[in-house]
Amino acid sequence: MRVAIVEGDGIGKEVIPVAVEVLDALDLPIEKVPLELGYGKWEKCGVAIDENDLEILKSCDCVLFGAITTPPDPNYKSVLLTIRKELDMYANIRPIKPLPGLIGVTGKNDFDFVIVRENTEGMYSSIEEIHDDVAYTKRVVSRKGSERIARSACKLAKERKNELTIVHKSNVLKSDTLFLGVCREVAASEGVEYGDMLVDAMAYSLMSYPEMYDVVVTTNLFGDILSDMSAALVGSLGLVPSANIGDKYAFFEPVHGSAPDIAGKGIANPIAAILSMKMMLEWMGYEREAVLVESAVEFSIRENLTTPDLGGSSSTSDVGKVIADHV
Amino acid sequence: MRVAIVEGDGIGKEVIPVAVEVLDALDLPIEKVPLELGYGKWEKCGVAIDENDLEILKSCDCVLFGAITTPPDPNYKSVLLTIRKELDMYANIRPIKPLPGLIGVTGKNDFDFVIVRENTEGMYSSIEEIHDDVAYTKRVVSRKGSERIARSACKLAKERKNELTIVHKSNVLKSDTLFLGVCREVAASEGVEYGDMLVDAMAYSLMSYPEMYDVVVTTNLFGDILSDMSAALVGSLGLVPSANIGDKYAFFEPVHGSAPDIAGKGIANPIAAILSMKMMLEWMGYEREAVLVESAVEFSIRENLTTPDLGGSSSTSDVGKVIADHV
Ligand SMILES: CC(C)[C@H](C(=O)O)[C@@H](O)C(=O)O
Ligand SMILES: CC(C)[C@H](C(=O)O)[C@@H](O)C(=O)O
Repeated sequence: MRVAIVEGDGIGKEVIPVAVEVLDALDLPIEKVPLELGYGKWEKCGVAIDENDLEILKSCDCVLFGAITTPPDPNYKSVLLTIRKELDMYANIRPIKPLPGLIGVTGKNDFDFVIVRENTEGMYSSIEEIHDDVAYTKRVVSRKGSERIARSACKLAKERKNELTIVHKSNVLKSDTLFLGVCREVAASEGVEYGDMLVDAMAYSLMSYPEMYDVVVTTNLFGDILSDMSAALVGSLGLVPSANIGDKYAFFEPVHGSAPDIAGKGIANPIAAILSMKMMLEWMGYEREAVLVESAVEFSIRENLTTPDLGGSSSTSDVGKVIADHV
Repeated sequence: MRVAIVEGDGIGKEVIPVAVEVLDALDLPIEKVPLELGYGKWEKCGVAIDENDLEILKSCDCVLFGAITTPPDPNYKSVLLTIRKELDMYANIRPIKPLPGLIGVTGKNDFDFVIVRENTEGMYSSIEEIHDDVAYTKRVVSRKGSERIARSACKLAKERKNELTIVHKSNVLKSDTLFLGVCREVAASEGVEYGDMLVDAMAYSLMSYPEMYDVVVTTNLFGDILSDMSAALVGSLGLVPSANIGDKYAFFEPVHGSAPDIAGKGIANPIAAILSMKMMLEWMGYEREAVLVESAVEFSIRENLTTPDLGGSSSTSDVGKVIADHV
């Protein structure tokens, strides 16, 4: 297995080395291919990612990714979005599950759901028309795109409680009538129990009754909003990992961004990055190792060795060391 | 003053009569014009709203509105959206403030912010293209639309803490670069302090640190999602009122929908409708009466005379009676 390691910018440079340290402690036959992308590269070379980088990424099986700062350039196209699209990683999987001993803003810890976010179309089409007095963005919902994300979600549901919630806004967006229809068809044909919710009602319901949900499937931007929102349920954006999965490639990244405001201080929580690496191990088939990593993370929390966002006073690398040692 | 009274469907038929009972108790020189719109009318006449209805609405100064159930017809166009557009009520004002004695899912009660949602464009353009295998919706952001909503938000901010947060997704949507730019210009020229947030980060931040915000301005669909989500902060969708304001007309409605699942049971919470009526009184200049209504609502909660969503056992009309009597 060849894994591209992209630290990126800001706290990406702090949390990814820690995740790699934990990975190294497992001593698996994995080849690491470090790659510089993002704001730093843009400052040096005028581009944040180039053709050659994409070739290197494609020569790997998957990517472990930190976070990237957006350069203040109106023509700039997001590195993250470029990679998701170029490697056609259409399923963005974001598990929302409390870690033992930690509680989020609502004090609840009896929930465990996964947001399956379509990752290649919707509002992220990049089809835009900009005039001086008006600007348009085209939201694209295709049958093919809806079908494959619905299949990913159903596959996951079957490994879990077999329950799917389809989130949409079809009372306003006719494009979501297609998404909803296709998801229903796929769920019915796969034998998965399903229901649906309007995105506004779902935002309220997820915050109020998170324990009601198992697998949630939705379009790109709704998934973006609902997953950040749900991070409040588990207590910190610094805890939520994600996987971007395609038919050929996969890409693992914390849900948080590069957080320039806290970068360089050694206080970034590395758990989201470590749990993203854990999702990578699962994807590779290293189930036993994934369990090891998860229990090491739980150990660090039990011992109160946490970063300031969780009320602790440990540094990013302290937390990493504890987890790597325990592994 | 002429006020159109539209109960609509579902619990709209239960909460609006109660809000009107409270209004009547104030004995103000207000002419009420009842109007049937929505699913009920659609079943009888095949249309949910017609030209004649719009004429009647336009002959009034404002509207007190319940909620409408969407008929299961793909060609159906939302009554609510039709009215918002036809009467050009471009500012949707949604105050998020805990009621004394009630707490929401996060247990916090030290916040008080207002979401100012653009109400006529964005994803609600109704410009769609539907094919069998792909569907498009056009998101429209105009300078004029952004400017007038920014002005509404700044006007409100000046009556409050003079702080504006502009919510957008300009790292992905170039159409939001226009929105963000215009809002910044207007805030600067009006002397309002401003900052901005990406919508995903804002969803997390509002749930985690609601006390940090004063006036939040955003585009149509983001405002829709963030306001329903924020209802979880105050404890129930049954508590959040809203006003739709244009240069000529205004329209007051609870944020909740017609809730067919609980309709007819007499358990719907009338407070959102009563507080919407209170926003109407403020708009009309009846400041003193608005304060009376608010304290009557607070009285009902202090006396534990609440509907089941708040843990009480009173019926919709019981709660209404207490509040009307107290007024
Ligand atoms: C950085 C940004 C382009 C990205 C997105 O909007 O998808 C991020 O918010 C995410 O959720 O991965
Ligand atoms: C009923 C629906 C069309 C409406 C909207 O999306 O605006 C509602 O959710 C609201 O927030 O007023």
